[in-house]
Amino acid sequence: MARPLDYKKDLHHLQVALVRWQATAMASGEKVLVVLEGRDAAGKDGTIKRITEFLSPRNTRVVALPKPSDRQDSQWYFQRYVVHLPAAGEIVVFNRSWYNRAGVEKVMHFSTPAQQEQFIRDAPEFERMLIEAEIRLVKYWLDISKAEQADRLDARRTDPLKQLKVSDLDGVAQQKWKAYSKARNEMLTRTHTAEAPWICVRNDHKKAGRVNLIRDLLHRVAPRDIREDVEKPDPDVVFPFEPEALEDGRLAK
Amino acid sequence: MARPLDYKKDLHHLQVALVRWQATAMASGEKVLVVLEGRDAAGKDGTIKRITEFLSPRNTRVVALPKPSDRQDSQWYFQRYVVHLPAAGEIVVFNRSWYNRAGVEKVMHFSTPAQQEQFIRDAPEFERMLIEAEIRLVKYWLDISKAEQADRLDARRTDPLKQLKVSDLDGVAQQKWKAYSKARNEMLTRTHTAEAPWICVRNDHKKAGRVNLIRDLLHRVAPRDIREDVEKPDPDVVFPFEPEALEDGRLAK
Amino acid sequence: MARPLDYKKDLHHLQVALVRWQATAMASGEKVLVVLEGRDAAGKDGTIKRITEFLSPRNTRVVALPKPSDRQDSQWYFQRYVVHLPAAGEIVVFNRSWYNRAGVEKVMHFSTPAQQEQFIRDAPEFERMLIEAEIRLVKYWLDISKAEQADRLDARRTDPLKQLKVSDLDGVAQQKWKAYSKARNEMLTRTHTAEAPWICVRNDHKKAGRVNLIRDLLHRVAPRDIREDVEKPDPDVVFPFEPEALEDGRLAK
Amino acid sequence: MARPLDYKKDLHHLQVALVRWQATAMASGEKVLVVLEGRDAAGKDGTIKRITEFLSPRNTRVVALPKPSDRQDSQWYFQRYVVHLPAAGEIVVFNRSWYNRAGVEKVMHFSTPAQQEQFIRDAPEFERMLIEAEIRLVKYWLDISKAEQADRLDARRTDPLKQLKVSDLDGVAQQKWKAYSKARNEMLTRTHTAEAPWICVRNDHKKAGRVNLIRDLLHRVAPRDIREDVEKPDPDVVFPFEPEALEDGRLAK
Repeated sequence: MARPLDYKKDLHHLQVALVRWQATAMASGEKVLVVLEGRDAAGKDGTIKRITEFLSPRNTRVVALPKPSDRQDSQWYFQRYVVHLPAAGEIVVFNRSWYNRAGVEKVMHFSTPAQQEQFIRDAPEFERMLIEAEIRLVKYWLDISKAEQADRLDARRTDPLKQLKVSDLDGVAQQKWKAYSKARNEMLTRTHTAEAPWICVRNDHKKAGRVNLIRDLLHRVAPRDIREDVEKPDPDVVFPFEPEALEDGRLAK
Repeated sequence: MARPLDYKKDLHHLQVALVRWQATAMASGEKVLVVLEGRDAAGKDGTIKRITEFLSPRNTRVVALPKPSDRQDSQWYFQRYVVHLPAAGEIVVFNRSWYNRAGVEKVMHFSTPAQQEQFIRDAPEFERMLIEAEIRLVKYWLDISKAEQADRLDARRTDPLKQLKVSDLDGVAQQKWKAYSKARNEMLTRTHTAEAPWICVRNDHKKAGRVNLIRDLLHRVAPRDIREDVEKPDPDVVFPFEPEALEDGRLAK
Repeated sequence: MARPLDYKKDLHHLQVALVRWQATAMASGEKVLVVLEGRDAAGKDGTIKRITEFLSPRNTRVVALPKPSDRQDSQWYFQRYVVHLPAAGEIVVFNRSWYNRAGVEKVMHFSTPAQQEQFIRDAPEFERMLIEAEIRLVKYWLDISKAEQADRLDARRTDPLKQLKVSDLDGVAQQKWKAYSKARNEMLTRTHTAEAPWICVRNDHKKAGRVNLIRDLLHRVAPRDIREDVEKPDPDVVFPFEPEALEDGRLAK
Repeated sequence: MARPLDYKKDLHHLQVALVRWQATAMASGEKVLVVLEGRDAAGKDGTIKRITEFLSPRNTRVVALPKPSDRQDSQWYFQRYVVHLPAAGEIVVFNRSWYNRAGVEKVMHFSTPAQQEQFIRDAPEFERMLIEAEIRLVKYWLDISKAEQADRLDARRTDPLKQLKVSDLDGVAQQKWKAYSKARNEMLTRTHTAEAPWICVRNDHKKAGRVNLIRDLLHRVAPRDIREDVEKPDPDVVFPFEPEALEDGRLAK
């Protein structure tokens, strides 16, 4: 059983490890791409903030793309993301990603079913190429329950610090909960591959989610001497996707 | 048998058809990517000049990338090309392309065998994605004989208008003729696909090569009313790649 | 008096000199920016074609920007042009330029009078900075008469090779001839500076215009041994702007 | 006299005001550029973190440019910064900026005296153009004493979370304290203009510095109803540059 969390101390310890890791990644010219996906209010921004807090601003980029322009809309779907892929020594974190096409675009009909189907077939191939090009790709799905999302969206509406996060789509998130679940299920099922697995993070408890996600990340990308210093992630919180998780309650229905 | 060439008249007729075609492509938002590959002095620049001569400068781009920077070198191989892919209504011509990795890089050892192998496996997948994204991709291999290349490289050295084309690699082209042939053979064989076939152009006779290439292009991309007005390309000059062509003398040994 | 033109021979001679010049410019890392402005059908495209015909495609860029996107429209006016400025060893030719704001935008009310006034005050300062950064900036104004423009626009409409040049604005060019003249006069008067003079080219006779423009260009930018081999431009065809030229008939009224 | 600081509460209050301000800036399409300059360890990163913590990631960019590439080095000095200027609705924060040329480049001889002199003459003109283009430019100089810098650099060396901030130049910062002071004095004196004043922030006390800088920022850029809710900055901490401050001890010698 997992040790109880001592958030401040645990996070500090992990952020030190992240710093040590980035120093080695810069020295060895590694390329790292972390993709964070999840429903509205799943905790992406907060997680990214903790990952990047002490990293080098010149070697770390957080990419949160706005709506595509008309010109971009007419281009190859992956094109506007490709521009931001990491070069040697860089850690790039995508706050949402090409998986928009399998999530919000599907639920809200922002693209055609044919485009969505094509995307879901192409994504594994595209990612395989990045991985063969020695980009270390790690994909996290932050999962929350419907009740937790409702609470967070409520809190957001009343928290004056979170007014910029309030969006027209927030209302839809709860109304279309089922449709989003269905889209998630298909996305996880069809784009979970040996080379680019989806790592699920049960994030109803934000602090536990963050701490365990960072543990998982370090165990995937850091060299051994750093890993040895990091606890294994709690498998009740962070685990590679498997279809059973859609049924057995580990992922919210 | 093919009608004898009346170069000026034939070219004029084809350039009018290209103009008509671009007008329709702009109106319908088509995306076109023409890739021109071939040995040094195979006639790429001259062909491109005739294709683009009367096209709209604002909707046509010729892309001839310089050597990659160190940063680009560390990125995903296709990344620096992806930036230049066509948006709606654009015709893009690549004067050399990602296939550098299967040609000059292979012969001159500018990349590792592992990178070259990976490229040749990835190229068809990459191109399939572009095609599914409704980019009309047409790939031409301009083929010349060893003697013709020697003549052209000689002429280049003494023509004061061609001094900027003279390159350190020119000498190598003849010396390493066999190695370049071998690289071409593998490239054509392994990256010729149903969706993105290689179209070979026997270009020892530049004018016949150009005229027939443009005929072929129009028959591949233009709407019927324009095609009906364009002669079929001479199959002795332009033909889709087939392995036999490496043996039967249609492609230079 | 100027020697009569032998177009083919003269042009060939000048293109050889351009090639020699670019070789030196590449070797010494020079940065060159040629701006071509003029009314519709003034001959910009044809002139650029002859300048760049034998230059190195990897060190020469012709920049013809499309209409700005909404996002670009909201940015600093010069921003979208700045991206294309030459780096060491590059020759960049702008087919129209930031001076759009003093020409078509003024006549057609595509921007506000305040923006136009600000532009015309800023342009000399902006150009001064580029010049101090060792960008060799040469600005040509191609001038044609009203009758010649009418003839060319007519010819354009009926020439099947020029259909892509036909634009909705063509009709306006003749109707608003006076307004365009007035805009030109103000632009030339207020942005002609010692460091970045406007060079006027009387271009009713295209061939004479082209040949003399290239002569002028080489005399401004090429090293002495190349210049010595190039005739001086005919001062009846090419001359630095002076206010009198607006009155004495050298520039079309 | 200024009210004593209640850091947590004061910062929270200001961050709420920043959020309210960004909402209005997005709605009205404002463009904001905040430049932060200062010696090593002056507190730029920490300040930026507090400013941007709750702002919209899609409308806020922090720009910390790496060393220029060779190609960039040959271009117009401002070119690589221009790319990052704000479009409508965007807040951009430059963590160091074009003023590198007047600071580290001068002290470390990374560019020539002629380039530095040219820069310092051009910067006010360049900034004037941005301001006329309705970019709201606010420039902060974070000032610390020599002893405080020594303490912070020491702390940095031993704090495992700050290892990525340790740089080869840190040692130089103390050794060349005088040279950096001289460079700062010239920079402030010559690039402090009515339109783009330097705002000095005495930052030996980080928390007071941050809080007062944000107060100052809001009083400069926010609409009245938000400003009314924000205390005036303490003039002992934040004040527009004036030459006397170099003598009377308000800026570190």
